[in-house]
Amino acid sequence: MADNQPLDIEDIVRDSFDENEAEQLTDKLSQLEPEEIAIALEAMPVEQRVSAWLGLHPDDQIGALTHMRVDARDNIFKQLDEQQLRTLVEGMEVDDLIELLDELPQRIYNYACSRLDASQRSWLETALTYDDDQCGRYADHDLLIINKNAKVRDAVRLFRKLADDAEYQDALFVIDRTGRYAGLVHATQILGLASHLPLENFIDTDAPIVDGTLELDQGSDIVSRSGYTALAVTDAEGKLLGRLSIGEALENVRRSLESQFMHTAGLDEEEDLFAPVFDSAKRRALWLGINLLTAFLAAYTIGLFEATLQQVVALAVLMPIVASMGGIAGSQTLTLMIRGLALEQITPKTYLMLFRKELGVGAINGVLWALVIAAITYLWFGDWIIGGIIGLAIVINIVVAAISGVFIPIWLEKLNIDPALSGSVILTTVTDVIGFFAFLGLGTLFLLA
Amino acid sequence: MADNQPLDIEDIVRDSFDENEAEQLTDKLSQLEPEEIAIALEAMPVEQRVSAWLGLHPDDQIGALTHMRVDARDNIFKQLDEQQLRTLVEGMEVDDLIELLDELPQRIYNYACSRLDASQRSWLETALTYDDDQCGRYADHDLLIINKNAKVRDAVRLFRKLADDAEYQDALFVIDRTGRYAGLVHATQILGLASHLPLENFIDTDAPIVDGTLELDQGSDIVSRSGYTALAVTDAEGKLLGRLSIGEALENVRRSLESQFMHTAGLDEEEDLFAPVFDSAKRRALWLGINLLTAFLAAYTIGLFEATLQQVVALAVLMPIVASMGGIAGSQTLTLMIRGLALEQITPKTYLMLFRKELGVGAINGVLWALVIAAITYLWFGDWIIGGIIGLAIVINIVVAAISGVFIPIWLEKLNIDPALSGSVILTTVTDVIGFFAFLGLGTLFLLA
Repeated sequence: MADNQPLDIEDIVRDSFDENEAEQLTDKLSQLEPEEIAIALEAMPVEQRVSAWLGLHPDDQIGALTHMRVDARDNIFKQLDEQQLRTLVEGMEVDDLIELLDELPQRIYNYACSRLDASQRSWLETALTYDDDQCGRYADHDLLIINKNAKVRDAVRLFRKLADDAEYQDALFVIDRTGRYAGLVHATQILGLASHLPLENFIDTDAPIVDGTLELDQGSDIVSRSGYTALAVTDAEGKLLGRLSIGEALENVRRSLESQFMHTAGLDEEEDLFAPVFDSAKRRALWLGINLLTAFLAAYTIGLFEATLQQVVALAVLMPIVASMGGIAGSQTLTLMIRGLALEQITPKTYLMLFRKELGVGAINGVLWALVIAAITYLWFGDWIIGGIIGLAIVINIVVAAISGVFIPIWLEKLNIDPALSGSVILTTVTDVIGFFAFLGLGTLFLLA
Repeated sequence: MADNQPLDIEDIVRDSFDENEAEQLTDKLSQLEPEEIAIALEAMPVEQRVSAWLGLHPDDQIGALTHMRVDARDNIFKQLDEQQLRTLVEGMEVDDLIELLDELPQRIYNYACSRLDASQRSWLETALTYDDDQCGRYADHDLLIINKNAKVRDAVRLFRKLADDAEYQDALFVIDRTGRYAGLVHATQILGLASHLPLENFIDTDAPIVDGTLELDQGSDIVSRSGYTALAVTDAEGKLLGRLSIGEALENVRRSLESQFMHTAGLDEEEDLFAPVFDSAKRRALWLGINLLTAFLAAYTIGLFEATLQQVVALAVLMPIVASMGGIAGSQTLTLMIRGLALEQITPKTYLMLFRKELGVGAINGVLWALVIAAITYLWFGDWIIGGIIGLAIVINIVVAAISGVFIPIWLEKLNIDPALSGSVILTTVTDVIGFFAFLGLGTLFLLA
């Protein structure tokens, strides 16, 4: 249980470097919630992380792993020997196993499966019929289920069995004889009721239901906006697969926004702060390679005007300004669009209005900064023509940036490509190429006459 | 109440454009949760938004406003006349008033205050003693409070008064005679107890407490990780100020991550998709201006080498590649660091290790891509020296980018400047200037000998 102080990771990380503090470190970590342990472990270099993790109680070990980012977790797995892995999975419930599925070596996974009883195995099999981005796979079984024709006293008895630290367990999930989900019974709604009353009269049937095939992000949004602490996840026949709680919804919302942020730099949200150098270099190399292609495309565009540059070297000096202003203006529009798309706020009905608005913003800022840049250029090079050329190129590039900023993300979304990941590369390719082309092209036209 | 379908904003927005569908639109919106109404309204251009909003029930009007992004909300306020504003605030509770404080015209705010009773006014005054990023200001009063020496029957009675749609109300907040917070009583823990028993034996004193002076983000993290649906917010004397619920925590977490994302493009998370063109242009102009300064700095650096460029125009063609590769590599490190800092995972103890790791990643990718670029350059210009120069400049710039990517955000954080907002501008200034300087400087050294 956390006390009322914010989590002090700095203190914990410091302890992890001091072998004499090992015991104290374990104490401190054990007092935290699993999510907090996960964050603290991620903040440690792999060596310290592994030894801090090994000091934990098996339940905390599993809790921390399931809450860690995949790469950070993987870097612990890699340090464990066969026996440690086996011991670890022996304590795992099906929920945990599903979460860790992709990172466990096959033979360890098989070993874990062989230890499950029939009902757990059937649960695992049902979960695995859903894709790894669907709610059906992650529906948790940490829920209290009661039959529709039970009495109030049965519900009370069931609630009273709850452990003290049960999370988001203020309602029972009601099923009918065939296993179909029928609604919720809230603890607050049956307080003080006579114990012989049929439960059926107190079922809340208004709670939204999460279909197992829904994407995890959508399911999480439904839970987070519903005002309920957990909702039922059901299969195509309406049978109860498990629940999605507000705690998991919150973690999913967090991950999904974090991934949007990381994607802007071509990174994965699972990236470990302390990944081995070589792993990290390998992963990032691809993004640099893609960027290199676009940089060469920009260079090629410049190369078309070698003769012009040779005669008017001022153009070479100024050309990055044109490209950069376009890139910045475009990425503002792009970022606004990506957020809107993520919230599903961009609809065909408003494409054109958004376009007109962004075009207007681009035109105003284009003209404004074109004048400023033209004036500075004149002061610098004492040449009104170069000033006029750069001003015109800036207007063109900022307007093109606005258009690209609106339509590139819409188009990527239609192609099912994540605009947060690919949008900025494509956009800057456009603004670089158009920027250089417009500026050097106008320069060729007006200065080499 | 939402049904089991994900929110269909596209459909709602389409209706908002059709005057014949006004009634149907109101129906659809009324069936949504306030947060969903807010998202749907934000997806409409201002004209449609205002008329859709005016059609809502007063409670939904207020609920939608308090959940909307500030600018989107403001664009509704601007369309309301004096009487509409007065009618609106008449239905507001203190919670809502605090939320909308900054956007209400002063006279409307005064009018709203004049209608509060003494206890509400005292609550408002207490809340306003806290800063607008502190938990004390936003602690909500939508909580059930019970005295420490009450009996189980009192608690049951209190719970039974709850409205059907009460959110996250599965526990009572216990206070002692002096108004100090003493713990929680969970509905599930008093089910089936004899009604004459003293409540005191069933108080959960383990729940974390949120200090009123804590930042809202920190308080929200505590709530979201605690496993409780709501925690007490207390003042310096331990008196109960209100509660922070998981619902609000989730919204705060969402906003804070969204702002991180929007800041990378110099935008505010409150930015309205359909802001008036001029407002939007004005707000974005500043960011373009800051960028312009850095672009001129880069141009100035290039200008130092005019003589070189005049003689070897290939350098002008290739120089954007050096700057761009540095910028991309640096922003990967920067993004990783910003996430780590936001999670408080970057501690002084590990600065050096992170630096060494990023330096290693930079060195590997620097050398790798330097070789590739050198080879392509040779093929393009048939000149090994230029190839060697660009390769060396790339290595230098990617290594500088790694160093900057680690230390710029740490340094900004120490100065209390948001690294998500300023980090990338400073970083690209460094990588542009160093990139151009290294490449053109080496060019001058080796090609003009």
